[in-house]
Amino acid sequence: MAHRIGRYTTWFDRPPTVEAAAAVAGPKEGQGPLGNRFDRVFTDPRLGKKSWEQAESELQRQAFLFALQKGGLKPEEVDCLFAGDLLNQCVGSTEGLLPFGLPQAGIYGACSTMALGLLLAAVACDGGMARRAAAVTSSHFCASERQFRLPLEYGGQRPQTAQWTATAAGAVVLGQPGEGVQVTAALLGRVREGGVTDANNMGAAMAPAAADVIVRFFNDTGLRPEEVDLIATGDLGETGSKLLCRLTAEAGLPIADRHADCGLNLYHKELQDVHAGGSGCGCSAAVLCARLLPELAEGVIKRLLFVATGSLHSPTTVQQKTPIPGIAHAVYFTAP
Amino acid sequence: MAHRIGRYTTWFDRPPTVEAAAAVAGPKEGQGPLGNRFDRVFTDPRLGKKSWEQAESELQRQAFLFALQKGGLKPEEVDCLFAGDLLNQCVGSTEGLLPFGLPQAGIYGACSTMALGLLLAAVACDGGMARRAAAVTSSHFCASERQFRLPLEYGGQRPQTAQWTATAAGAVVLGQPGEGVQVTAALLGRVREGGVTDANNMGAAMAPAAADVIVRFFNDTGLRPEEVDLIATGDLGETGSKLLCRLTAEAGLPIADRHADCGLNLYHKELQDVHAGGSGCGCSAAVLCARLLPELAEGVIKRLLFVATGSLHSPTTVQQKTPIPGIAHAVYFTAP
Repeated sequence: MAHRIGRYTTWFDRPPTVEAAAAVAGPKEGQGPLGNRFDRVFTDPRLGKKSWEQAESELQRQAFLFALQKGGLKPEEVDCLFAGDLLNQCVGSTEGLLPFGLPQAGIYGACSTMALGLLLAAVACDGGMARRAAAVTSSHFCASERQFRLPLEYGGQRPQTAQWTATAAGAVVLGQPGEGVQVTAALLGRVREGGVTDANNMGAAMAPAAADVIVRFFNDTGLRPEEVDLIATGDLGETGSKLLCRLTAEAGLPIADRHADCGLNLYHKELQDVHAGGSGCGCSAAVLCARLLPELAEGVIKRLLFVATGSLHSPTTVQQKTPIPGIAHAVYFTAP
Repeated sequence: MAHRIGRYTTWFDRPPTVEAAAAVAGPKEGQGPLGNRFDRVFTDPRLGKKSWEQAESELQRQAFLFALQKGGLKPEEVDCLFAGDLLNQCVGSTEGLLPFGLPQAGIYGACSTMALGLLLAAVACDGGMARRAAAVTSSHFCASERQFRLPLEYGGQRPQTAQWTATAAGAVVLGQPGEGVQVTAALLGRVREGGVTDANNMGAAMAPAAADVIVRFFNDTGLRPEEVDLIATGDLGETGSKLLCRLTAEAGLPIADRHADCGLNLYHKELQDVHAGGSGCGCSAAVLCARLLPELAEGVIKRLLFVATGSLHSPTTVQQKTPIPGIAHAVYFTAP
């Protein structure tokens, strides 16, 4: 059972424990600063499959397999899955997790999917729906480019505000209260729209939603930013991160000294040309699973506000010049 | 707090009450047998908007507005929304519900979306995350055709197994335990894949998933089909319904005498040419909100197993000839 703090925040009375987490990545991500922290780096971006879409499904399957293995779990010991991805109709998750035969809720939050899945998995574990529940998500640069922008073969020029969709997947298994890292609280995002119509500037489209959820979290809980070790957004990139810090400062919450963005963590800024940073459901999921959750488990940080952000456009709405709405869901982790 | 019965079923110890439900529909649906039960029938399939996509968003907005009005509620009295649709990246829900400014979880279950949303809204209300939560979904024939099949202008011939995507939306607001119709139990679907590659035969692609969740519900609860007044699937159409009744009978659960399919309820079979029946997220949502929930409230039926089914293909996977997986989520309603 959970209870609400303030207007929006769900506080878990039986905080679910992180039982296992895993991340897998493609070759470019493997060459980044987290390269040696992934459970597996695939040197073939197609993972031996016939299509980019099948490769993405395989990423998601592998991430969940590694999480099961690290937790010493059989698939049937996980009661339900919350999974989604960027592909039309979320086919990456459907195809990727089909072989496990587990009850599955399809979710869509664009690049905020890992936070949305974690929130729902935590609610499921806390409320009696599941003994264990997993959140799984992925993205693939090549599948995303051809779906959202242009086929790779076109070789289009990208502006500096554009982000690079990560080829990566992450999986987290939550369980009943116990030792270790816990999901202490969570809150759902609200869709915010600030007039951005450029799908190559998603950071600016998502920053207002990230600011909104962060401000609501601190208002609801009465916590101050300095009581949290790290506020990790994903993935605002350079453009969106600057905007976020300005927006929260204007709201009386200076977070710049404890803010990091997953999109700026996945690649080497100087060595790898990803323009404004990484993005894609797999980006914040992989940084969470490969770096942030291990740092919580090791005691490097003790209180983490994970705020994954999503840009809620489709190729159709971009062609129709509809302003791009953003969303950001927040999950508050604590370590003993 | 909920508890699990059997392996898969969530039984609500504080069963959420249906506080309000509403459905709106397009002109063709307005001419069907439920025409006078909808809260509003739009004679203009574009609802005065510039695009089919915007028209679909307006349907969803109107359905939620009517639900609020019928429940005597302000938007801010609903703590969170679970919403999705068929459009790429679920833009129908994002755009449609943006003006309400409420915390929102994006979900994807294709035509099973209403059941998935209801399940999650019930878990949210029961577990302390929300005092009230709403499930909202929609579909639009014209937006769907051009995205999943062919532009309307092409005028392609459709085979008899094809279903007609409903132009309709439904919204249900769940609240705390009380008088009236309750969500007593629910279970998530498993993705099932039976080798169907024809996107014009979704009924056959979804029937195995529907049979799976129905069999699991009866196995878990120990109930027999004759203890339930109605098992309403949506939307298997003629082809899928026959297959479902055969599959459940083979599993020792004859349900044909108490089974109805929402896809066969929305249109006049003889007068309106929809081939195998209706489909789309809006179909089962509209039949639930305009007919089934009122029948529960009026005491016409007392126990309803609502099993919304979804076909989890995308235009890309159909072109790649990937077999179409299906899913079906189940929600068990009871009336006092």
